Amino acid sequence: MTKINPMWQQYPELVPNLTAVLALMKKHIHTDDRAVTEAILDMINSGGKLLRPAYCLLFSQFKPVDDKKMVALAASIETLHTATLIHDDVVDRALTRRNIATIQARFGQDVAVYAGDYLFVICFQLLANHTSDLRSIRQNAQGMEKILNGELSQKRMRYNYEMTIDDYLKQIQGKTAQLFGLACFVGAYESGNSLSFSRQCQKIGLNIGMAFQIMDDLLDYSQSTATLGKPVLEDVRQGVYSAPLLLALDQHQGEFIPYLEKRANMTAADIDVVTKLVTQYSGLEKAHALAASYTDKALKGLNKLPDIPAKASLLRLTKQLLQRQF
Amino acid sequence: MTKINPMWQQYPELVPNLTAVLALMKKHIHTDDRAVTEAILDMINSGGKLLRPAYCLLFSQFKPVDDKKMVALAASIETLHTATLIHDDVVDRALTRRNIATIQARFGQDVAVYAGDYLFVICFQLLANHTSDLRSIRQNAQGMEKILNGELSQKRMRYNYEMTIDDYLKQIQGKTAQLFGLACFVGAYESGNSLSFSRQCQKIGLNIGMAFQIMDDLLDYSQSTATLGKPVLEDVRQGVYSAPLLLALDQHQGEFIPYLEKRANMTAADIDVVTKLVTQYSGLEKAHALAASYTDKALKGLNKLPDIPAKASLLRLTKQLLQRQF
Repeated sequence: MTKINPMWQQYPELVPNLTAVLALMKKHIHTDDRAVTEAILDMINSGGKLLRPAYCLLFSQFKPVDDKKMVALAASIETLHTATLIHDDVVDRALTRRNIATIQARFGQDVAVYAGDYLFVICFQLLANHTSDLRSIRQNAQGMEKILNGELSQKRMRYNYEMTIDDYLKQIQGKTAQLFGLACFVGAYESGNSLSFSRQCQKIGLNIGMAFQIMDDLLDYSQSTATLGKPVLEDVRQGVYSAPLLLALDQHQGEFIPYLEKRANMTAADIDVVTKLVTQYSGLEKAHALAASYTDKALKGLNKLPDIPAKASLLRLTKQLLQRQF
Repeated sequence: MTKINPMWQQYPELVPNLTAVLALMKKHIHTDDRAVTEAILDMINSGGKLLRPAYCLLFSQFKPVDDKKMVALAASIETLHTATLIHDDVVDRALTRRNIATIQARFGQDVAVYAGDYLFVICFQLLANHTSDLRSIRQNAQGMEKILNGELSQKRMRYNYEMTIDDYLKQIQGKTAQLFGLACFVGAYESGNSLSFSRQCQKIGLNIGMAFQIMDDLLDYSQSTATLGKPVLEDVRQGVYSAPLLLALDQHQGEFIPYLEKRANMTAADIDVVTKLVTQYSGLEKAHALAASYTDKALKGLNKLPDIPAKASLLRLTKQLLQRQF
């Protein structure tokens, strides 16, 4: 049975197609290794938010739509996202995600490396089999290059508390915003919109993605492990510094450094102090304001688009991401 | 300066295009991280055999050829190969390849995972930017799925000395032969040959790939570390059992098992005993005969092709792979 994240009950018009996206992804997973297949399916079933395919589907509504094709292309975007998550978990040596054991925790990093590669391939299969335009594939390959450059930059900057908020913004533009932009571009372009209209949608998607990632990093500081489905602030221990920390750190490096310099040896108590310092120096508020500025840009872009029913959903969903607790 | 493997001096007609393949690959590598870029370039410069692009270029000669396009497509095949090598090294925790330190030895597995992903993307970029036919991309994605299934199967079978030679053949068909088949298909199809002719070339490529991998595994038993550029028989210690061992083991399990059961704890002396047992029970001769049977099939297929100058090179190269010491 394919069940999508309950948040979509607020958008009933999207439920059938998002359910179809998940079902199609699952249909394409058939490695020769049953255990690996099961592990990938568990990951697909584990309640990911499906935001990227949702935006892809919504942006496809500006033209009369071939549902089957758009579901396949949305599935290809979510498959790409899943592939990057699996490889991120290898790199981060993560044990849980979305409250279930990661593939690498269950089967070792070997299997996780190949499982991620396998999903990259399925992504391209879905794309190549359902597009009739090489431009989408070129766009996809270009977007993926930027995503990987973002990931590499994040690795390079690890444990570097001299990194600036601009370094951070450049990173998340690569690792997160690009894929949101790609989802919106593919949705618009593949349903028959002009290249310039589709580029406009891609730009909106980039801003949505920026806001989304900043909020994601903010939640890491304000939520419990149970809510997030992954350990809180593990990132800091691993040297990944995000908006709330960088914005709080700005004028107060001296107070943070003794804790950050412990790197992977930070204790729970150290993490606690850092969290408190981040709160004390308004890291959370500042990060929220930063996210809001990207959401504003996205909303302005959305408001310029033709008035179709999907536009209301696009506006609502984009606003909601700024208030999310999930 | 771009220098290709000296073996190609015997095929001077291929040297300009193979040199162009390497140069084009290098031109496409520009991550935001200079060290990672350098590491990938070092790997590309480290004297790989370039067999796959060579076959791709040779099979393109059956029609008048657009050299620039074929060089790009051959580069895409070699880039895919390089990506899988980088990920194989992550999975095998390998320290050297082609006598230089692996990317993961130099920068850690994080960078190696993303560097491999990056090359997958460059492969698709080269392909998408230089083909005018979605079928090649679909074929590529399909081939890659089989390659990954082969890798996954190899992982699943690790330390399983009950595995049969058929299991092994199925594995190498996925992990090696598919890419040779793809190289030959892309060469033929993209230069304007019919689908059925191109499939015929692909089949020949599959047989060449089977022979190549069996010979590769054979050399692991008969060559020194210095010649191979990687540690001898590390595979056995890691539980990867190939043709010479499996063919020798067949009637003599009892003698091998005490050593194989030590798994990663096998000493140099244990490896030595296993090597001697493999020789004693004709593992090397049997593996060579097996490789020869695939080479024969490939040569038969090649002989049926139209008589063009490249055909002589195809025949010569394919025979040579059976005698190779490199």
